Amino acid sequence: MGRWEPNARGRLAQAALTLYAEQGFEQATTAEIARRAGLTERSFFRHFADKREVLFSGVDSMREIIVRAVEEAPESAAALDAVSAALAAVAAVIQENPEAARLRDAVVSANAELRERELMKLAEFAAVTAGALRARGVPEPAASLAAETGIAVFKVARARWMSEGGKPDLPEMLRESMTDLRNVVADRLNGAPAPS
Amino acid sequence: MGRWEPNARGRLAQAALTLYAEQGFEQATTAEIARRAGLTERSFFRHFADKREVLFSGVDSMREIIVRAVEEAPESAAALDAVSAALAAVAAVIQENPEAARLRDAVVSANAELRERELMKLAEFAAVTAGALRARGVPEPAASLAAETGIAVFKVARARWMSEGGKPDLPEMLRESMTDLRNVVADRLNGAPAPS
Repeated sequence: MGRWEPNARGRLAQAALTLYAEQGFEQATTAEIARRAGLTERSFFRHFADKREVLFSGVDSMREIIVRAVEEAPESAAALDAVSAALAAVAAVIQENPEAARLRDAVVSANAELRERELMKLAEFAAVTAGALRARGVPEPAASLAAETGIAVFKVARARWMSEGGKPDLPEMLRESMTDLRNVVADRLNGAPAPS
Repeated sequence: MGRWEPNARGRLAQAALTLYAEQGFEQATTAEIARRAGLTERSFFRHFADKREVLFSGVDSMREIIVRAVEEAPESAAALDAVSAALAAVAAVIQENPEAARLRDAVVSANAELRERELMKLAEFAAVTAGALRARGVPEPAASLAAETGIAVFKVARARWMSEGGKPDLPEMLRESMTDLRNVVADRLNGAPAPS
């Protein structure tokens, strides 16, 4: 049936995000989402298990992007640099459609259940990242500390990117935040600039 | 009624934790918890809103402990040191009853909804910590980065403490993990020791 519905998945996702933002996640119905996308409700359920999946359908591919980036980081790369590379790859994907990211963030922020699911997603990303680091030979607790800290920086960078209107772009904001973290840990943020 | 039920709250909490660990959180009933504690189900609901609250009833006091510790950190303390002091205070409270912490961890780990709630709790702690840092004059993004990173280290330290059988104690494991973090960020964990 796919051939009769060009980019049905993308249209449904866009319609869903817009409706969730307009009406609230709870209120929007799959029938309305389908109508807004010019498709049938049956078509919605061919592409998504439920309303929530629209907001978390990218998780599997993000997980793969993280693992590949950690694997492909130079052998000499420090653990936190490999994590930075992985998160930069995730940030680049998000940056491809900043308006969708903004809508999604507003929807997730407004709903406690979705906020919990989002935290679970980030915790999964941290666990996946730590596993990929261990596969590179990074011992514990360095692997978990680098992974959890990287996700912490990603959360802060994403929130700054949202609140500051998308400038600079997310990959750049992530780089800046990682430098800020190094300065915070070295207690340099308000003092001398970081050594390069 | 409290005077007829000495330490009813503590007995109910202990009975609930034990039952959750034995039977699973879903299966345990408030009637059984009360019976195990030698009390009535009505007594359970005088002390806890529901089964879940038993596992998260310490959140408010933890929040206060965090805020107070950040406030009381020496004026000269760096942001991350103030966060470390706050988390050390939380760790000291958990260390008062390590067996309860162990039971609780097993119960929460086994249930997706409880894991999500636990992540939400830690995210709240990070937000509270960042707010207390800002109140000390720490600017953003340093406040959020120090807070989120501190919580990341706390998560790793707590998991290590659990998996390594409670030795060293949690406050010590937290100190070690914070040192490990500094080394990971400086890419020193497998290299030269940290300068003191």
